[in-house]
This record gives sequence, structure tokens and C-alpha cells, in this order.
Amino acid sequence: MKRKRIFIALVVILFISASVAVAFSYDELVVKKTFELKEYTTVSGKKIAPVRIGYETYGKLSPKKDNVILVCHHFSGTSHAAGKYAASEKLPGYWDTVIGPGKPFDTDKYFIISTDTLCNINTKDPMVTTTGPASINPATGKPYGMSFPVITIRDMVRIQYELIKSLGINKLKCVTGASMGGIQTLEWATSYPDVVEKAIPVIGTPKAYAWTVAWVKMWADAVMLDPKWNNGDYYGKEEPVDGVAYSLKAITLIARSPWWAESAFNRKPADPKKDPAAAMNNKYLIEDYLDKAGAGRAKSADGNSIIYLCKANALHDIGFGYGSYEDALKRIKAKVLTLPSKTDILIYPYNSAEFAEALNKAGGDASLFEIPTFEGHIGGISDIQKAGSTIKAFLEK
Amino acid sequence: MKRKRIFIALVVILFISASVAVAFSYDELVVKKTFELKEYTTVSGKKIAPVRIGYETYGKLSPKKDNVILVCHHFSGTSHAAGKYAASEKLPGYWDTVIGPGKPFDTDKYFIISTDTLCNINTKDPMVTTTGPASINPATGKPYGMSFPVITIRDMVRIQYELIKSLGINKLKCVTGASMGGIQTLEWATSYPDVVEKAIPVIGTPKAYAWTVAWVKMWADAVMLDPKWNNGDYYGKEEPVDGVAYSLKAITLIARSPWWAESAFNRKPADPKKDPAAAMNNKYLIEDYLDKAGAGRAKSADGNSIIYLCKANALHDIGFGYGSYEDALKRIKAKVLTLPSKTDILIYPYNSAEFAEALNKAGGDASLFEIPTFEGHIGGISDIQKAGSTIKAFLEK
Repeated sequence: MKRKRIFIALVVILFISASVAVAFSYDELVVKKTFELKEYTTVSGKKIAPVRIGYETYGKLSPKKDNVILVCHHFSGTSHAAGKYAASEKLPGYWDTVIGPGKPFDTDKYFIISTDTLCNINTKDPMVTTTGPASINPATGKPYGMSFPVITIRDMVRIQYELIKSLGINKLKCVTGASMGGIQTLEWATSYPDVVEKAIPVIGTPKAYAWTVAWVKMWADAVMLDPKWNNGDYYGKEEPVDGVAYSLKAITLIARSPWWAESAFNRKPADPKKDPAAAMNNKYLIEDYLDKAGAGRAKSADGNSIIYLCKANALHDIGFGYGSYEDALKRIKAKVLTLPSKTDILIYPYNSAEFAEALNKAGGDASLFEIPTFEGHIGGISDIQKAGSTIKAFLEK
Repeated sequence: MKRKRIFIALVVILFISASVAVAFSYDELVVKKTFELKEYTTVSGKKIAPVRIGYETYGKLSPKKDNVILVCHHFSGTSHAAGKYAASEKLPGYWDTVIGPGKPFDTDKYFIISTDTLCNINTKDPMVTTTGPASINPATGKPYGMSFPVITIRDMVRIQYELIKSLGINKLKCVTGASMGGIQTLEWATSYPDVVEKAIPVIGTPKAYAWTVAWVKMWADAVMLDPKWNNGDYYGKEEPVDGVAYSLKAITLIARSPWWAESAFNRKPADPKKDPAAAMNNKYLIEDYLDKAGAGRAKSADGNSIIYLCKANALHDIGFGYGSYEDALKRIKAKVLTLPSKTDILIYPYNSAEFAEALNKAGGDASLFEIPTFEGHIGGISDIQKAGSTIKAFLEK
């Protein structure tokens, strides 16, 4: 009995200290939270009820609630941008190099919110909360599957807007994110010009050009190539794991670069005892890496959600509903720092340069810094610290 | 009876005139021929019997047989490099802009031989002759399928060498080709240094770097993702058409560029009445193009042959069996003009620059001209005429 009381007391102390730690510094344990909207109507007019998304925060909200930075995640990412949920977690969040005390996104100054998107693909990651085709449709008691409405980047952003409103936040010091996160960032600056003070789209684009439309199509098609996809009706049955793994391999590869490939793998065989020339199944190390990356990432991913995110990305256009693209640019009031990756072949750096030029021409305030990375598109995540001082200066100016 | 005689006479006349025309100028009707080896032993020591490959020629062989240029084809290509088989043929061969009378590969001067490779993927194209997994294994009376031996680029080249020997040709004025054709070109220069006088590898590479290994792996994996592939045992059954079509879509896309995509398709919908935002199945025009390109090319292609060609390309390394890569470079006696494409992301132009530098350092004679194309890898085919005067000058010097 006495032991039990001590145990409870310890748990309470741990809980309080964890909470306090979370409040003051992200690099203590991170806590996942959930935001729910009873009902949400998509841009295209379809109702989804309810909508739930996960989010986490780093740093402390100022009394005036005027120190908020919103971080939006990439296609295959989650809201876990920094820190760890538990000391035992192997790696911290994906942008940990730039989010933290004294870091460019300084948790001693800013209150950083990072959210899961609508239709996040990692539906099997216990730390992800999202609403999408794998969610239960309350009307039927079964997963939506392909009956889930088509969603857009703007839908993701509108839900994030409802989240910050629910927290009493009216202004965002900055919105940022990499890849699909950079895409959301530009959608934010366009749709909520009076909320967003600064925007840092990283490896993002103001609209999906034909090249991006083509690539995301390939990722969706890979899922549908697997007969187990079964027109999206696979929940509770065998899932299209091979199609999903192929899709994630394809995403992994186009987001990289030959410099990365050569320095990491060269022509090394996967198994020194199995010469790739000796048998069809003997692989090079890079082949083995891709197979393992695809299969590993597939464990937490949902095929239909990949298809929905591909569609959302293909549809992306800040001009949608605001007249022309040029009209959309004129809406943007935020100061924008755009950060393309030097070696990106999925969203080429010249796209960012053209955007910055067009925004400045439209009366906006855009600057550009090319991340000097040889890692390709993913350099916007893996090498983000190379833009650290530029980000810091931009936020402070 | 009289009518029949006239008909025969006409056929004979047509046949003779066609032959004469072929002898003097490729841009008359092109005739497909077949070369057969009763038995061939692969580099890895496996016997294939017989081996047959198709070839076609443009121009006239000089009495001394010293005006020969060999053209090797790309991954998804065939020996049909120039001219037409019939006036009714829609398009001429793929390099028709540079092969012909007065053109850089001048059929008034040179006798040009273009061959189908071993394991050509277009086994259902009636104008292609090749030996590969879709060929009948005389030992079993059934297609080889995945029991066909692993082959390499060097195997392709060795068979081409047997072909030219059979024609009494001992020297090649030049070997050339685009992509896998450029790869064969460099293998020729390395393996037969006393035969090749000049070499023009276009969008080629002396070895498959990890990046190329990764991409060809994706193409092979797409075929194998289709359950109808059935470990290669599908002949006479339902074939893995969807996997093959996906593979050819993937090849089409990585061989292109964002500039091509944007200028050809922009954000146009496939059907103006079907807004891509309105339904999951409503496509953009570039999606429709890729689907049709994949399905169209799949009609003539064999899945297993794609897998074998992917392996051959992944294994490519001029250094194989010759000591190191540097040792292989020292073997090359041909003057080399390497022609990368400015916007190539499958085989980046810097690969060609590094090769040219390494060859010159090894005592060779290499020059480089970057094809000023915005079409990506495929610019080495579609925009080859932009290197026309460079090719002409190189052949004449």
C-alpha cells in the first residue's frame, strides 16, 4: 500500500516535470496533442465530420500569443519536426538541427506548432493523428476508402487555421515547412495574408508544374498497380504493401541525387559474397537500400492516403479561386524567404527563383537562398542547417 | 496468267530498285536483315545457341570496307535509326535528323550499320530481331524466361563484332549511339581498341554509377510488381502488361525534363470537361500522356527483356575484367567525342565531363560538346541535330 502511494507520487512528479519541461524547451520530451473539428467542409464543398489532426509544440507561447511559428510537414512526413517523445527514441524530429534553444527556430523565443496534415500517409504510426481515407466514416462505420472527398493543400491549411484560432492565436510570426510543407507555407501566405507575417517555403512551389504533376502521378499509380489495392477497398484484408513500398522507393529516389548515391553506395554489392553479375537476384547495395527504405516506410503508410496526397499536390495552385496566379501573388503580404535546394530535380531551384521574381514584381517582398546541398530535394530537410544563419537573420530582421 | 507474269515482273523490278536505292541512300526504303551466330558464349561463360540480331544499313560500303559507322541503340530503342521501311511509315528512324545524304552521318560517304541488341525489349515489334528471355530455348522448345543467362553490355558488343567480321569489316570509322547506345560505344572503344577509330558516345557513361543502378532497378521492379509477371513465366498466358506499361512510363519521365513538361502540357486537363479537382479519376494532360505513352510502348515490349536490360545496364563498367577503370581508359585508342545533354538527370552531363578529363589524363583523346537541349536525357535523341555540326567536324578531322 505504501509502495503504491510512492509510485503514484513519482508518476505525478514525473508528469509535472515533463509538462514543465515541454512548456519551456522543446528538447525535453515532446507531447503529442490532438485537435478536432466536429465538422469541416472542404474547398470543393464536401463535408467531413469529424476531422482530427495531431500536433506538437516546442517552446513557450508568449502572454500576447505573438511569438508563434507554424511548421508544416512534407509528403511522407509527420508533425514530429523536433525533439523526442521519449529519451529512448532513436532519432529526434526531422528538423531538429534548426529547431531548439538558440537554434534558428529558437525555442527560447518562439512557440513552434507543428501539425499533422489531413490525409497524412503514416496512418499506422501511433504518434500520427490524421483524417483521411483510412479513417472511419461515421455514416457507415467503415473506412472511407476512395469515398473520401478529394482534398487540396488549401484544405490542410484551413484546418491548421482552425487549430491556431482554437488556441487564441491571431498572428503567425512565421509559417514554414519543407516540400509539401513549403507548398502549404505559400498557400498560407496567400489564403491568410493578414495572419502570416513571414513565410519560409523550403523546397516548395507556388503551384504544381506539369513536372511535379507527373511525378506524384507515378507514386499514386504504383499503389494502384498492386492488385491488393482493390480500388481502395482493402481495409481489414491484405493490404497493397508491395505497391506502397514501390511508391515510397520511387519517392525516396527522386528526392535524392547522384552525388548522394555515389558517396553512399558507389558500386558496392549488397553482399560481398554475392556478385551482382553472377545472378539476377544479386543486388548492388543501393538496390538493397531502396528495397529496405521502401519496405520500412511502408510499414506505417496507407496506400489510399498516398493517392489522396498525390492528388492534393497535383491540384496545388495558389491562384485557385483568387483569379490568376498573378492575382494570388498580389494577396501575399508576408515577407518571404524561399529556400530551394541547389540539386533538387523534383522541384527545381529555378522554380523558386521565378516565384521570388514574380512576387517582387507583384509588389511583394521575396528573397532567396539556395541551400548548398548535394543531397537533392531532401537536402531541404537533411541539410536545412546550411540555411540556418539565413533563417535566423530573416526571422530577426 | 498474263496478269500474274506482269505482277511478278513488277515485284522483281520493285525489289531490285529497292535494293539499289538501299545501296546508295538510306532515305530510300530501308531493309531489315538478320545476323545469326550458331552459338555464343557470354562473358560470364554461358552458352546461348543460336543468337540472332536484326540490323539495317544506310549508305554504301566502300570497296576497301573502310567507311563503316556502327550505330548502337538506346534502352527502349531498336536498330531503326534512320529512313523508313515503307513510304507509308509514319515516322522515320529515331536519328533521322543526323543520318542521311549530306547529314552529319553522311550516307553519301559512310556505310552505316545499326543493330538490334541482345535482349532488345521490343520483342513484339515485327521489325525487331533479337535473342533474349522471350526467345525459344531450343533445348526445351519453350521461351527461356528467367533461365536466360545474365548478359552485359559487353555481350551486346561482342555479338556486333561478330556481325561486322561476317561482313568482312575490320575497322570502324566510328561507333556511336545514344544512352545505352553511348554505353555500348564506350564498351566498343575499350574492348576493341584496334577496330574503333572514333567514338561518339551520346548521353552515355563509361560505367553505371549508383544513381543509374538505382533507376534501372526501379524499371525492373515495376515489371516484377505485376503479379502476372509470375517469376517470368507468363509466355502463352496473360502477360504483365500493367507492370511493363508502368516501367515504360517511368523510363519516359526520368528521360525528360520540367521544361519539356511545362511547354508541352502546362496544367492543362486531359479533358476540358473534366476538372481534375472534381474527381479522383480526372487527369491532367501530362498524366494522360504518360498513361498513353506507357500503354503504347508496352504493346511491343516484353517484361523479362526489360529486366535483363536493366541488369545489363546496372552491371556496365568498362573496367570489368581489364583491371581498374583507369586501366580500361588506357586501352582506348579511339578519338572520343562525348555528347552529354545539358538537362540530363538520368546520366548527368558532369559524368561525361569527368570521363573526358579522365581519358585525357590517361593519354587518350577526348573532347566534349554539351547538347544545348531542354528536353532532358532524351535530348540526345530528339535534339541530336543540335550537335550536328560538331559531329560532322569530328568525323572529318
